[in-house]
Amino acid sequence: MTAKMLEDFNREHFPQVDHMNMRVEHVDDKTITIRMSVTEQHLRPGGTVSGPTMMALADAGMYLLLLAQIGPVALAVTTNLNINFLRKPAPGDIVARGNILKLGKTLATGEISIYSIGIEDPVAHVTLTYAIPPKKQNL
Amino acid sequence: MTAKMLEDFNREHFPQVDHMNMRVEHVDDKTITIRMSVTEQHLRPGGTVSGPTMMALADAGMYLLLLAQIGPVALAVTTNLNINFLRKPAPGDIVARGNILKLGKTLATGEISIYSIGIEDPVAHVTLTYAIPPKKQNL
Amino acid sequence: MTAKMLEDFNREHFPQVDHMNMRVEHVDDKTITIRMSVTEQHLRPGGTVSGPTMMALADAGMYLLLLAQIGPVALAVTTNLNINFLRKPAPGDIVARGNILKLGKTLATGEISIYSIGIEDPVAHVTLTYAIPPKKQNL
Amino acid sequence: MTAKMLEDFNREHFPQVDHMNMRVEHVDDKTITIRMSVTEQHLRPGGTVSGPTMMALADAGMYLLLLAQIGPVALAVTTNLNINFLRKPAPGDIVARGNILKLGKTLATGEISIYSIGIEDPVAHVTLTYAIPPKKQNL
Repeated sequence: MTAKMLEDFNREHFPQVDHMNMRVEHVDDKTITIRMSVTEQHLRPGGTVSGPTMMALADAGMYLLLLAQIGPVALAVTTNLNINFLRKPAPGDIVARGNILKLGKTLATGEISIYSIGIEDPVAHVTLTYAIPPKKQNL
Repeated sequence: MTAKMLEDFNREHFPQVDHMNMRVEHVDDKTITIRMSVTEQHLRPGGTVSGPTMMALADAGMYLLLLAQIGPVALAVTTNLNINFLRKPAPGDIVARGNILKLGKTLATGEISIYSIGIEDPVAHVTLTYAIPPKKQNL
Repeated sequence: MTAKMLEDFNREHFPQVDHMNMRVEHVDDKTITIRMSVTEQHLRPGGTVSGPTMMALADAGMYLLLLAQIGPVALAVTTNLNINFLRKPAPGDIVARGNILKLGKTLATGEISIYSIGIEDPVAHVTLTYAIPPKKQNL
Repeated sequence: MTAKMLEDFNREHFPQVDHMNMRVEHVDDKTITIRMSVTEQHLRPGGTVSGPTMMALADAGMYLLLLAQIGPVALAVTTNLNINFLRKPAPGDIVARGNILKLGKTLATGEISIYSIGIEDPVAHVTLTYAIPPKKQNL
């Protein structure tokens, strides 16, 4: 699936997350880059991007990267997410760069680094595991 | 700090999270219970509560439990969050029950179990660590 | 499986871990308590029990608790372990108390608190997830 | 500190871990590579390297990488370790490749990938956080 197909699938099946303003900038068979336009609702006092916003971006990024590999299986389920918050993000856009660590038959694991525009080092690092449903559940 | 004081502090310092509709049902020197009214924006396809919503509730719950112990320090920072998603939540309200595992001078760690109304066992389990700033940064 | 059966199974299938000197003190359908006799090889400078020793005890404890529920499946595999080190343990024995958070068909998740003799609060808290193999792989 | 200095420091201050047969193959200001000679005691049934052995290698690797940056501070303490087991390792040597994600004044976070000789992809991925003591505690 291409970046465009992923976004279309996402919009159709997850209408509730449209407010996240995410854009898939790149996707291939191992990595993904997605950018999120940060708005007032994603900010914390001091103008920093909130933790749950970064977690949501990481979850969406890894989910889409998996979709790009296994096809439009809307029912893959996050089973574990571990996030280390490393630096205070700036109030601007955030970008998630992810790669797959393992793509098995029933489990997939990946990692995401989150960057804040204007800061060189990552502001957060996330590892995520998903349970992949049996084939017949494909949409 | 009482449940009422915590909610007042929260509203004043985190106006952006008001939309979460959280209510502190109980707080003491070790535990907290907070309830969140789930609305359409927190749902995923199939009507289940989204992962980021549960993470946001866990983060808010542990943050408020820490505040109740160390006073209104708005600058405590989440450094690590690890969540295991255990069961599919129902579309209704979710409740977080948390307790402190360690309250040190510079780090605090706690755990939160998240329950979905009508389901006996927890739908998610979260451990969180916060960095506590030096005293002079108190508000 | 009783505590005695678990220990026999463990000795037969994991001869390499015998040096850990673990004893199952209690096991039921939700919880387990195992104690480990700490020896010189498990200590760090200053006489404190090493982190890997506590991780090994947590892993063994949750594995045995799962065995007690699903029978002697030697092939259940740890997929994720997250540990928070909370306090410096004393040089003596350590005790792990665990409970199951979720026992599904393909995944099981539990938590373990590790105690050090003479210290009231836990010295470490661990969450673990295991992949459970299909039935036919039972021994 | 060079690889040789790190090994000397390690041997002097952690005589108990000598049995791990670790060798620092490379270290610079961001990354480390250490190799561990696997022996019978580190194996599980089927000849696979045990989880606690990989956790011990990851912990040692990140600890030495930190030492190389901040000097011989024997008292840095692991506060969190999260490991995802990705593939079954072969019975031979394992190699840990680590890099620092954040080196702050009081906290440092890094990630380690563990490789098994003969397997291209990592067999485990670990993130670790350490609390760094105030300067006066330096040895």
